[in-house]
Amino acid sequence: MRVAIYQGPSAALDKPGILARIEAAAAEAADAGARLLVCPEMILSGYNIGHAAALAAAEAADGPSAMAIAETAKRNGLAIAYGYPEAGPGGTVFNAAQVIDRDGTSLVSFRKCHLFGDLDRAQFAEGAELPPLFEIDGVKTGILICYDVEFPESVRSYAMAGAELVLVPTALMLPFDFIPEKLVPTRAFENQVFVVYANRCDVEGDLTYAGLSVVAAPDGVDLVRGGRGEAVLIAEIDFAAAEAARAANPYLADRRPALYRS
Amino acid sequence: MRVAIYQGPSAALDKPGILARIEAAAAEAADAGARLLVCPEMILSGYNIGHAAALAAAEAADGPSAMAIAETAKRNGLAIAYGYPEAGPGGTVFNAAQVIDRDGTSLVSFRKCHLFGDLDRAQFAEGAELPPLFEIDGVKTGILICYDVEFPESVRSYAMAGAELVLVPTALMLPFDFIPEKLVPTRAFENQVFVVYANRCDVEGDLTYAGLSVVAAPDGVDLVRGGRGEAVLIAEIDFAAAEAARAANPYLADRRPALYRS
Repeated sequence: MRVAIYQGPSAALDKPGILARIEAAAAEAADAGARLLVCPEMILSGYNIGHAAALAAAEAADGPSAMAIAETAKRNGLAIAYGYPEAGPGGTVFNAAQVIDRDGTSLVSFRKCHLFGDLDRAQFAEGAELPPLFEIDGVKTGILICYDVEFPESVRSYAMAGAELVLVPTALMLPFDFIPEKLVPTRAFENQVFVVYANRCDVEGDLTYAGLSVVAAPDGVDLVRGGRGEAVLIAEIDFAAAEAARAANPYLADRRPALYRS
Repeated sequence: MRVAIYQGPSAALDKPGILARIEAAAAEAADAGARLLVCPEMILSGYNIGHAAALAAAEAADGPSAMAIAETAKRNGLAIAYGYPEAGPGGTVFNAAQVIDRDGTSLVSFRKCHLFGDLDRAQFAEGAELPPLFEIDGVKTGILICYDVEFPESVRSYAMAGAELVLVPTALMLPFDFIPEKLVPTRAFENQVFVVYANRCDVEGDLTYAGLSVVAAPDGVDLVRGGRGEAVLIAEIDFAAAEAARAANPYLADRRPALYRS
């Protein structure tokens, strides 16, 4: 399965501007043969924008932007994962990410479960669950947002449920290069799954996003790695090769849960 | 606290030869001000030696080699962690690691809990528990052996119990550089503990050990990193600085165990 990451945007844009950018990335990804495009956390509105702006931009999971992205998915024949502010009850906002399949239907809309410090907590309500896996071209897939992936329990939970692929829209800022460079590849290795980590690259208020998006493979190899700037990144995932890595490092089978403190 | 790793040996040695090498490493570490020396997995006998040789070399936790290492610890005024074959019931052998304090008393003798493939299973019985933490200079410390650390649950268990430091005697072979380079630093980062990963560097039968021993810090920095060859490595651990990293990345406080599949 060929997958694509849109690492961007390179500057703040309004919603029509962002939707046009996603359309352009989807067209480029489709031309490269990708069946899936993963975009960053809160791409629809920006991330470091404060609660009032997040609330003003918030939509339902089937709101007008989702409809526009569904059209982009159908037009380009690929599934699209993207982060957005989801309107919650009573003026709350969830930091959400949705995956829309190439037929325009929603596969999942996930609410970030691990809120990152005051930055997240001042803007967002926390999600209540890790949703069931969904399938893209028959591949069992889970989704997390940014800080969620830094908890080994999150990816482990999906892996124990049978995930082969985990998508991670993110907005990871400097100086945390450690996360995309070492922690994310470790999540892929220790769980024997592929992780698609799609980061922002713009400067937004007092934050500079790190870029360095990656598709990390179960054998410890980075299938593609972004730099600091805007890019559409393409990687070919070989799930059959993952079986060999899984046989060499059978972590899930070798776990000893009775020994672990919960 | 200053700590040392003995990355070695560079060739097969008999027990007196190994004990002399540990004595030399302890003296060098003590001269550098270290309060703790961590030696690799199965340093006392070799690791890739087969069950018969492991059984022939096996001793009780308070056997003659432990007594010799206790003398080395007292003579040099530092605690010593080292791997050895522990005699079990009915001709079994545990892949064990003991920590002997600078007064010559045993702080823990741990039996490897996660056996690595046929290599371990053909030689060793598996350990039954992660033991309670112990203290070195008042620092709460846990111990694991090699493959044990590759399971995030293991280090997490110690961290949840309050560990600040985790010692890992290991015998990690090529081509698994990913483990010391990315996975071990991730364990330190995601748990906000220091990890001392002490590897072998010799060729032993069909295995070439990777070296690359490391003291990994909670902020993602490698405090010291070995090359491929024999060395005594020294690192200064600043537990006060770890408090700052813990405040910046409060993973243990931000966990949401109700969401995780066990």
